[in-house]
Amino acid sequence: MMKVLTFGEMMLRLKPSESKRILQSDSFEANYGGSEANVAVSLALQGDDASYVSKLPANLLGDAALGTLNRYGVNTGKILRGGPRLGIYFFEKGASIRGTNVVYDRAGSSFAEAKSDEFNWSELLKDVDYFHFSGITAALSKEMQETLLSAVKYCQENNITVVFDTNYRGKMWTPEEAQAFSKKVMPYVNVVLANDEDFEASLNIKAFDGDMKHGIDQVESFKAGMREVTKQYPNCHTVASILRNIQSVEDSQWTALVLRDGIFAQSPVYKMHVYEGVASGDAFGAGLIHGFLHDYDLQTQVNYAMAASVLKLTIAGDLNLVNESEIKSVMQGADAMSR
Amino acid sequence: MMKVLTFGEMMLRLKPSESKRILQSDSFEANYGGSEANVAVSLALQGDDASYVSKLPANLLGDAALGTLNRYGVNTGKILRGGPRLGIYFFEKGASIRGTNVVYDRAGSSFAEAKSDEFNWSELLKDVDYFHFSGITAALSKEMQETLLSAVKYCQENNITVVFDTNYRGKMWTPEEAQAFSKKVMPYVNVVLANDEDFEASLNIKAFDGDMKHGIDQVESFKAGMREVTKQYPNCHTVASILRNIQSVEDSQWTALVLRDGIFAQSPVYKMHVYEGVASGDAFGAGLIHGFLHDYDLQTQVNYAMAASVLKLTIAGDLNLVNESEIKSVMQGADAMSR
Amino acid sequence: MMKVLTFGEMMLRLKPSESKRILQSDSFEANYGGSEANVAVSLALQGDDASYVSKLPANLLGDAALGTLNRYGVNTGKILRGGPRLGIYFFEKGASIRGTNVVYDRAGSSFAEAKSDEFNWSELLKDVDYFHFSGITAALSKEMQETLLSAVKYCQENNITVVFDTNYRGKMWTPEEAQAFSKKVMPYVNVVLANDEDFEASLNIKAFDGDMKHGIDQVESFKAGMREVTKQYPNCHTVASILRNIQSVEDSQWTALVLRDGIFAQSPVYKMHVYEGVASGDAFGAGLIHGFLHDYDLQTQVNYAMAASVLKLTIAGDLNLVNESEIKSVMQGADAMSR
Amino acid sequence: MMKVLTFGEMMLRLKPSESKRILQSDSFEANYGGSEANVAVSLALQGDDASYVSKLPANLLGDAALGTLNRYGVNTGKILRGGPRLGIYFFEKGASIRGTNVVYDRAGSSFAEAKSDEFNWSELLKDVDYFHFSGITAALSKEMQETLLSAVKYCQENNITVVFDTNYRGKMWTPEEAQAFSKKVMPYVNVVLANDEDFEASLNIKAFDGDMKHGIDQVESFKAGMREVTKQYPNCHTVASILRNIQSVEDSQWTALVLRDGIFAQSPVYKMHVYEGVASGDAFGAGLIHGFLHDYDLQTQVNYAMAASVLKLTIAGDLNLVNESEIKSVMQGADAMSR
Amino acid sequence: MMKVLTFGEMMLRLKPSESKRILQSDSFEANYGGSEANVAVSLALQGDDASYVSKLPANLLGDAALGTLNRYGVNTGKILRGGPRLGIYFFEKGASIRGTNVVYDRAGSSFAEAKSDEFNWSELLKDVDYFHFSGITAALSKEMQETLLSAVKYCQENNITVVFDTNYRGKMWTPEEAQAFSKKVMPYVNVVLANDEDFEASLNIKAFDGDMKHGIDQVESFKAGMREVTKQYPNCHTVASILRNIQSVEDSQWTALVLRDGIFAQSPVYKMHVYEGVASGDAFGAGLIHGFLHDYDLQTQVNYAMAASVLKLTIAGDLNLVNESEIKSVMQGADAMSR
Amino acid sequence: MMKVLTFGEMMLRLKPSESKRILQSDSFEANYGGSEANVAVSLALQGDDASYVSKLPANLLGDAALGTLNRYGVNTGKILRGGPRLGIYFFEKGASIRGTNVVYDRAGSSFAEAKSDEFNWSELLKDVDYFHFSGITAALSKEMQETLLSAVKYCQENNITVVFDTNYRGKMWTPEEAQAFSKKVMPYVNVVLANDEDFEASLNIKAFDGDMKHGIDQVESFKAGMREVTKQYPNCHTVASILRNIQSVEDSQWTALVLRDGIFAQSPVYKMHVYEGVASGDAFGAGLIHGFLHDYDLQTQVNYAMAASVLKLTIAGDLNLVNESEIKSVMQGADAMSR
Repeated sequence: MMKVLTFGEMMLRLKPSESKRILQSDSFEANYGGSEANVAVSLALQGDDASYVSKLPANLLGDAALGTLNRYGVNTGKILRGGPRLGIYFFEKGASIRGTNVVYDRAGSSFAEAKSDEFNWSELLKDVDYFHFSGITAALSKEMQETLLSAVKYCQENNITVVFDTNYRGKMWTPEEAQAFSKKVMPYVNVVLANDEDFEASLNIKAFDGDMKHGIDQVESFKAGMREVTKQYPNCHTVASILRNIQSVEDSQWTALVLRDGIFAQSPVYKMHVYEGVASGDAFGAGLIHGFLHDYDLQTQVNYAMAASVLKLTIAGDLNLVNESEIKSVMQGADAMSR
Repeated sequence: MMKVLTFGEMMLRLKPSESKRILQSDSFEANYGGSEANVAVSLALQGDDASYVSKLPANLLGDAALGTLNRYGVNTGKILRGGPRLGIYFFEKGASIRGTNVVYDRAGSSFAEAKSDEFNWSELLKDVDYFHFSGITAALSKEMQETLLSAVKYCQENNITVVFDTNYRGKMWTPEEAQAFSKKVMPYVNVVLANDEDFEASLNIKAFDGDMKHGIDQVESFKAGMREVTKQYPNCHTVASILRNIQSVEDSQWTALVLRDGIFAQSPVYKMHVYEGVASGDAFGAGLIHGFLHDYDLQTQVNYAMAASVLKLTIAGDLNLVNESEIKSVMQGADAMSR
Repeated sequence: MMKVLTFGEMMLRLKPSESKRILQSDSFEANYGGSEANVAVSLALQGDDASYVSKLPANLLGDAALGTLNRYGVNTGKILRGGPRLGIYFFEKGASIRGTNVVYDRAGSSFAEAKSDEFNWSELLKDVDYFHFSGITAALSKEMQETLLSAVKYCQENNITVVFDTNYRGKMWTPEEAQAFSKKVMPYVNVVLANDEDFEASLNIKAFDGDMKHGIDQVESFKAGMREVTKQYPNCHTVASILRNIQSVEDSQWTALVLRDGIFAQSPVYKMHVYEGVASGDAFGAGLIHGFLHDYDLQTQVNYAMAASVLKLTIAGDLNLVNESEIKSVMQGADAMSR
Repeated sequence: MMKVLTFGEMMLRLKPSESKRILQSDSFEANYGGSEANVAVSLALQGDDASYVSKLPANLLGDAALGTLNRYGVNTGKILRGGPRLGIYFFEKGASIRGTNVVYDRAGSSFAEAKSDEFNWSELLKDVDYFHFSGITAALSKEMQETLLSAVKYCQENNITVVFDTNYRGKMWTPEEAQAFSKKVMPYVNVVLANDEDFEASLNIKAFDGDMKHGIDQVESFKAGMREVTKQYPNCHTVASILRNIQSVEDSQWTALVLRDGIFAQSPVYKMHVYEGVASGDAFGAGLIHGFLHDYDLQTQVNYAMAASVLKLTIAGDLNLVNESEIKSVMQGADAMSR
Repeated sequence: MMKVLTFGEMMLRLKPSESKRILQSDSFEANYGGSEANVAVSLALQGDDASYVSKLPANLLGDAALGTLNRYGVNTGKILRGGPRLGIYFFEKGASIRGTNVVYDRAGSSFAEAKSDEFNWSELLKDVDYFHFSGITAALSKEMQETLLSAVKYCQENNITVVFDTNYRGKMWTPEEAQAFSKKVMPYVNVVLANDEDFEASLNIKAFDGDMKHGIDQVESFKAGMREVTKQYPNCHTVASILRNIQSVEDSQWTALVLRDGIFAQSPVYKMHVYEGVASGDAFGAGLIHGFLHDYDLQTQVNYAMAASVLKLTIAGDLNLVNESEIKSVMQGADAMSR
Repeated sequence: MMKVLTFGEMMLRLKPSESKRILQSDSFEANYGGSEANVAVSLALQGDDASYVSKLPANLLGDAALGTLNRYGVNTGKILRGGPRLGIYFFEKGASIRGTNVVYDRAGSSFAEAKSDEFNWSELLKDVDYFHFSGITAALSKEMQETLLSAVKYCQENNITVVFDTNYRGKMWTPEEAQAFSKKVMPYVNVVLANDEDFEASLNIKAFDGDMKHGIDQVESFKAGMREVTKQYPNCHTVASILRNIQSVEDSQWTALVLRDGIFAQSPVYKMHVYEGVASGDAFGAGLIHGFLHDYDLQTQVNYAMAASVLKLTIAGDLNLVNESEIKSVMQGADAMSR
């Protein structure tokens, strides 16, 4: 079986129940997740061999985060323990015209403070076939960018496919910083994911007219941007992107475009009633990688990844708690009403 | 006051909170219900004299199930106690494109294991005017089918109206088995309910083109199927059916057709935002029976039954916790926004 | 900073969790609110100087209500304590075609039983610039109507702007009673709010064709009604109204009309997925007053007030827990999907 | 089977979760109970034929209260519906040295406002063998005292045993008022319950030295008081009393004394860790009546009643949710640790 | 590192919140556990290499049970999937004199129905050093007894230490059946655990006077029984037992005796306030095995095992969620009050 | 009315429900508190004029913390807003022999990072009569120690009584660091609180034999230590201390000693069943200050402060949600069982 390793930060997510605001809430639902951890969990639940590398504090919170990964079948043997704290983010689920709101409390975390030499890539990447990380990891510090560059260089030398989810976060760094990093890392990247504003913010490539609420109406513009990526970075054989039209927190349409080896494929458009609009990009990335691992043809790959992604929109928490057969059932348009 | 008796299995329903998956849930909401029990509760809450016959284990779970029936006014004096266990079903509420999911754990229940001679129909059906059961009861065992046949024969001899909700469950038996039973029981049935795929699976009568997501678009086809039922089974004076167009777990349209004494009536179409898509067929059946008990004209009956049915879609749990005036208020299109 | 004083009753609201019915609920979520208290809290959270006058019982429930006001920054120093009890209302949140349901248990409350001479208006209204109350307060008793008339007379003599939210409640008084009060109080009112059926029920002025589900389709008719108000009551320089088209408990469209100094302005129409349809009128009133306090131009005022109002529809409880910048963000059509 | 009728007020009890204070609580657990309703439920769960008469409002709260009685098997066919409201009480469970706290909100309830002529005793008491009521009912109003006197006179004329639980509540009336009523009613009473301070407050009979925390240490003094009762009221063949030593909310010792036909019996002393210290007197009364219904000898009766009473201290809510075999198991000192 | 394998059934435990009764509960807390699974989880959390073998259904409940084991670090790679269902037990936590109550719903489970030849012991026990099972497993069926006998024979031939927790359950089999099995299996057992009535019920050896509430007062009698075990079964080098004095569900004293290679050691006596009285025997067994794995001297072993066992009494659920350092901290009498 | 100002850090406290461990918890109860904030809230609820100075982040968490203070009547007008984050602590409530466990996540908080010159003491302490802070504040940083020294010097110059709760936290600094700070600050302190090990750790004064579980048994030794404090620091007119005997997390005895102007007084000893063992020292400090504000004689002051302190042990969360009359009721030994 092929092996995937993902690398990034795991955080405690604290969310008021239902759609309450923090101001009125006297309890929080607790989940543990993070972009790359979410990808690893998705893959493990889909039956793949997924490992995760990070650094978690050697305290009860770190234990709980680790327990989450174990629970869903991720290999956690290479995770470092130590450092000051587990990063936290507070998550206020929006409703209708009130957008979902995130308050980061992640500074000074064990992972963000980890030193480059704590990660011995020749050991960590031994026998690995796919290496996945996101722009969030890079946004944490210059040190972490160095760490990532060491990793991707090792990958290139050892024929490990590098998957980079640009995942731009405006609360963490500026477009200029993101683009500077992309410039350095993209020559080593084989598969890149860029959704919505990521193209412009992370890659400095124009893909749409700036109105994120009408992505699906701009498919051709996105295609042009995707082609530009492969032109600038010839090592990058695959560019994938989620496009959305958004009416409200609950109502939106979703489709995906993949450009692989010069050929485009688009998934069906899903009209969604969103239950929790978080981590669908991670679910998409995992679906895409699953497609590579199992040699899906291009159209199947994009359809599968999109079905995985929209399933995530129906599930509470950061993790896409579905297996392969459930994703395929959505791909095949199973009856929404059980008997 | 006329008397109704319903007969079937009652189960413990265990549901993760909100739309959580079982995999992530560390608690379950508990409800007690079952197709025929739901009908009895609906009728009792609407002011009718409703009794329920079943067999419940003589343990705390059986007590709790019994308490539920008592709470809402069902006559429970004829319920048997004993046997191994209360059946259970786990209920994962879906969201958007993720369908609702049911895991049955009902094998070996006190009711399923009950012997035919435990039910003394001449006593149980004394003074009863309407006898209701569903295909779920028949699907439990050959023995239960014998039990039902004894009951309906007694009804025919004693002028008790027999109401049969075909209620096909693919997880319990095959269409062939269901049809074999229908063949035997239908000659004794006076009122039959068949929704969606029930026509074909239970009655082996073609009523639509196989696409359950577009039932309302096929009204004429359904009418033909309903006429065919009355043709094959002349004792059956009423055939009733719910038709739906389904977009997602939350969004669907609902209407009902009733063929009574050769005349069709259709309810208005309701555009629904579904809160919990379960037991609306039972609510419909109860509404229909309530119409018979109170001599509603055909159009009022179908409208009332449909209003009862769609109200159920707004209520948590298996039971349709509404009274007659609330149903009539929906029939009359009351303002959805209170003051 | 200008000062606002609102005057009315505060109640304990008891609501079954999610959309459960009272009949099936073994717990209630507790909130403390009331039309005028809601306005005061909204203003305080938006950074204004807001005081609230009422009478709360000198028991643990009164303490809890007071704590709620303090929590969100309302000046509570003038609130009276004593009397028999805190009013209560039970709130069943509807779903789809099942309307939201309110059971009042407010008779005999400390505020409803308060005597006119307990409120010393020259002290209470000292330094106040805006005085706000609603028709709910007037509906409590003849005595309370006298109390209000004393207050508004004092306001007129002391150049305090009087804001009257007609807020008709059919469960509390008849249109005839409401209209009789309006006749007496309107000559002292400077700003009046009337939504939906309030025009006819409270002011005896025809504003629409009786179908509250299609208010937005009748803008012109509403405008005529609003002009009629200013014609009958020349002291009333501003008339404001929310208009709605309603499809279900969850789905509706919202807009607002304001007639100020003879000029109309209308807000954009918001297509809403309603989370909890309560107290949006209070949020609107607070937004309107905030506009006066900060010299917003007419169009900004109506847009701001409407944005505040629809935000309330996304928030649990009676209180509009948003600040000025969040309201402005909705006014500017911020992205509904956070990053 | 012998029949018992109890008569009194049923209320909604609202309790913060665990041992929270009202001031900090944003939800309440809801239970429906009341002294005489609790007795009826206890008897029904122990297999006896128990009816309850009261007046409940014709609203959703009244429905919910009724549902509770039905759920546990009480005959509710004679309950009146109508009137203004359901009484409420707020219940703060104490801890250690912080005593449990009750806030009444029961004024103006449907039952308290009910008129004497609404209760037709010759119909209500038809075929009844035991009639039970408490001092709480009498404390509601002079009218209710008249109602009770009519009832007990009817009982005496028709050989119905009258059980009176003095149940003094200092928040409802003064000792003088209670004693005046006792004077009138006691000549018709056959069985009287008086615990702790009830002797002095309700019956004006000295039974202990005023220190309720050391009741068990004063058994002889209680016996003297009990004898005095039978001396003053010769119709009263049985006097029963619970005696307690109290260390804290959680820790106390319990015993019971019964004087029946001139003979005393005392139950064992139970050393209790109290889970919820409410309604144990009602549980005791029900146990006592159960003993009469089943011809228990005196020692068995007092032991059974005491076991029922202390079991109530282990159960959440007002209702003693145990059956006869569970009570007998405690009587026999079953192992506290299950296997 | 030495390896431990435990073998048995895992069930879903459903428990009403706090100390509620099933009759009044509308939700259940869900945990997954079972005697041998609990031992495996304990060992894994204490840093040992623990594997678990069982058979879980291939459905969502089986997935959830598996996820629990993974979460806490147990090796689950050898667990079989398939069969009809996951066993369930309902757990009513008692209080004071109301004992904890268990309702089994475990008949027909995937594990109970598993065939002997599904377990290939030479594969399953490869490289294993300690094999642990309990009498509960044997009580499931004759087939399972055969399975166990095959296993222990393999162990004896391959120098794998066999640990047998007699764990008598009167709801599952009779003493006669248990003793018959013990006769067959004990010749292969090296370490036996027997608490309270287990000696007599499972081993037919007299160890105390029948009063389980005063075990600690009968240390000498227990020692005699333990010596008798080693006399009858010379292969059995270690006999371990928990002794308790029990006052109520919450209050009890605990100590442990171990007879190892002919020498006795006793742990300190712990005076406990029990939070949840379940699975402390499994925690004890795991502590004992941990002592063997790490070559603890006898006194340390019994002290460690007892500390682990009483810690379990403070933790919700079936699993002893503590690590080695927390157990040692209790052994050393750490301050109960944190700073 | 005299004015009190307290100064320190406020944190978000996250606690698993009931006595769950973090490892098994998927939600946290949220409270906002901190030693000095707790004192301010206590005083405000007891009717005193209490202000609090701190620095809270300008985000939703800071708003929520502020709302808590407002809710209970603390003056918050002088609180600074800004800086990186709100400190957090995770709180695992222990049970029996499992001690309560705290995980700090407070590094880098807005308050800890605040600079000395952000606090303008001549403004902040204007009109203040009592200034209170704890050793926790000093433990945060050298900078904070400087800030405190500026404050207490200002107090001495302006006749403001300085109350210093030594409150040693071994997870924050060493005894050496604490003692170095005490040396500097004590010459300005008028009232010092030192419990248990604080004497030795913070003040380097021997007060007991090192066994914190038997404080009450060492009253004389504590008295000697207290006298030594006043000898070393003549400005310090009052030394107060809580002494405990501890059996388990739930069971302990509590008393207090105060040495004021050379005279000792001791409160009664309370035998407690502890509900939540946190912040009782803060409640004690507030009670002591309340005694000064209202000129209580020494014995009343120590009795009042101790009653306030043990009441806190019965209340969930960091805040002592009781008023003056409730404290006095406990002082007077009110009946623990309500009627």
